[in-house]
Amino acid sequence: MACARFVTLKAIHGTWTHSQFLRPRIQTSGIVRAFSALQSPPSTAVFYENHGPPDTVTKVIELPPVPVGANDVCVKMLAAPINPSDINRIEGVYPIRPPLPAVAGYEGVGEVHLIGSEVKGLSPGDLVMTSPPSSGTWQTHVVKDKDFWHKIDRRTPVEYAATVTINPLTALRMIEDYVDLKSGDAIVQNGATSMVGQCVIQLAKLRGIHTINIIRDRPGSDEAKEKLKKLGADVVFTESQLDVKKVKDLLDNISEPALGLNCVGGNAASLVLKFLRQGGTMVTYGGMAKKPITVSTSSFIFKELSLKGFWLQKWIGSDKKEECREMIDYLLGLVREGKLKYDMELAPFSEFHTALDKALGKLGSQPKQVIKF
Amino acid sequence: MACARFVTLKAIHGTWTHSQFLRPRIQTSGIVRAFSALQSPPSTAVFYENHGPPDTVTKVIELPPVPVGANDVCVKMLAAPINPSDINRIEGVYPIRPPLPAVAGYEGVGEVHLIGSEVKGLSPGDLVMTSPPSSGTWQTHVVKDKDFWHKIDRRTPVEYAATVTINPLTALRMIEDYVDLKSGDAIVQNGATSMVGQCVIQLAKLRGIHTINIIRDRPGSDEAKEKLKKLGADVVFTESQLDVKKVKDLLDNISEPALGLNCVGGNAASLVLKFLRQGGTMVTYGGMAKKPITVSTSSFIFKELSLKGFWLQKWIGSDKKEECREMIDYLLGLVREGKLKYDMELAPFSEFHTALDKALGKLGSQPKQVIKF
Repeated sequence: MACARFVTLKAIHGTWTHSQFLRPRIQTSGIVRAFSALQSPPSTAVFYENHGPPDTVTKVIELPPVPVGANDVCVKMLAAPINPSDINRIEGVYPIRPPLPAVAGYEGVGEVHLIGSEVKGLSPGDLVMTSPPSSGTWQTHVVKDKDFWHKIDRRTPVEYAATVTINPLTALRMIEDYVDLKSGDAIVQNGATSMVGQCVIQLAKLRGIHTINIIRDRPGSDEAKEKLKKLGADVVFTESQLDVKKVKDLLDNISEPALGLNCVGGNAASLVLKFLRQGGTMVTYGGMAKKPITVSTSSFIFKELSLKGFWLQKWIGSDKKEECREMIDYLLGLVREGKLKYDMELAPFSEFHTALDKALGKLGSQPKQVIKF
Repeated sequence: MACARFVTLKAIHGTWTHSQFLRPRIQTSGIVRAFSALQSPPSTAVFYENHGPPDTVTKVIELPPVPVGANDVCVKMLAAPINPSDINRIEGVYPIRPPLPAVAGYEGVGEVHLIGSEVKGLSPGDLVMTSPPSSGTWQTHVVKDKDFWHKIDRRTPVEYAATVTINPLTALRMIEDYVDLKSGDAIVQNGATSMVGQCVIQLAKLRGIHTINIIRDRPGSDEAKEKLKKLGADVVFTESQLDVKKVKDLLDNISEPALGLNCVGGNAASLVLKFLRQGGTMVTYGGMAKKPITVSTSSFIFKELSLKGFWLQKWIGSDKKEECREMIDYLLGLVREGKLKYDMELAPFSEFHTALDKALGKLGSQPKQVIKF
């Protein structure tokens, strides 16, 4: 099945347009530029020409070599995750997405393969990641300007380097940026088994902050609870356990949370709001249930709640590149010290479409899928 | 009808308890304190012993004289409004409310009748208002410590002095405190015919801020639109006019609003959210439709909206007394200059229950009811 989707570029050759996200791998003018003799190897890439269901619009194709300019770095990719936002970009429902046709993927890690003549500070063999994240990481060889690449410690496990930006950094910023939390305070979150959820538990615990965690009712929820508790979760409830008059009676010695994190919506968001203390803030960063958030008037006026959203791509914007890299180094340091871990499943690139089906939820609840090139 | 509800205190005499909101008008100890010979006149008051529907639990009764202490001021009330929050306090659904039994009302204006021996700066005949607002204003004579009273300019129309705090001050704070608005910016609000709505239009216009106003579909909505435009509204829409794909196409030259004000909930709140620009803030200060606010996940993440609430009573708290009085003076100055006006209907105290029925919406859409003593 998956192999049948491997096609060559020839069939779609005529449709290409230049974009900053997808380097043209064919000299359309017929003139080979004289100032650079360097070329990348051919690249095997997850490619789409139209938006639509990711399992039907994506094809794994072979792209021809492209020139490596004086300031470019050609990286042999090692790993890249399949994030919900990658899926939304392919579907065409994400507000910022590369022009079509495009190579999918938005974060990833690799090894420097070739550098342009003007590149300083990077050498072949260095471990580098796209930082801030940028489009087109689901391919074997990526050529981008040197500024797109961040060199990281060689001892970093590649699956963590590949995944550290979108989810762990979201967790870190949400803990830091909305409420001035102190040791002994608490956070309530739904979707606690997600990668962000797992990171929130661990990053909060490092600061002495308690977590109240909400997960879906599903087979295996007891095991999921135990797993989250091992990561440091103070309490974990399934949604049905919270179908009580006063959820706060379930908190024992944990203080009422000032910060709530919502990546689900619908009832799971209402449960987060119920736990929040007077004047608390709920930050929405995802909508897995595809249901809106419903809030009573009195929650705003008398309980003085604030509701906000977090969007990493916007947060990084154009001016947070250095700050982003510093935080990445901090988070990867925690990983190497064994203080930050989360569930992932490494999927060989040859089985990309199976990994995609898992990420799409077609095969039940699955850990984060990370493509290994 | 209304007169039948006038009863005397005698029947309910035994149930009284002391509270700071309702001065005991009977010397329960039997000892008349020697240091003060001053007494208030008897007071005719809107009184309730139990929470419930305001038109059934309130009675207009005669309360006996109470002592006027050395630091007390006895005020002959001139006017007091019937606000939605007064109704909610009587119903028992307002989070902060006086202990029972209680005299209703929370803001009002009157004339100094008697002052205690230690009171400086106030003299009989001065025009004074409760500031910050405090309970028990729906009666002919109120005795409170001097600190409860704020002396105002004699030339102030009493119906404005009676009503300036709860609604106009809410409008002022919401314009000032959430978004840094500049001349040329815009505000969108629902419930635009409310007293707060009318004040928002005028206070915004004084600062060069445009208003986009949403009103209910009802008979007379064309007249309501014209009235709001005369106050300075840039555009006024009924909810049904906004049943279009892109409400922003209706804005012509008005910039997308950064601030939205919601006192309705339900669909009317969703319309405010639709108008808001990227990163905008919606402040909820009422829930006239008694329907919750529903928000999509993408409104939080991609449109980066913030939702908050405003509660004047909490805002004033314990430390904003002076600031509150300064703003009252500013607002009443605007009133005297003819720059701030709003619809009111003065109701003689003898027809209190008719005014209450109007305030309860039992007689169709009515202007703000202000009791005239």
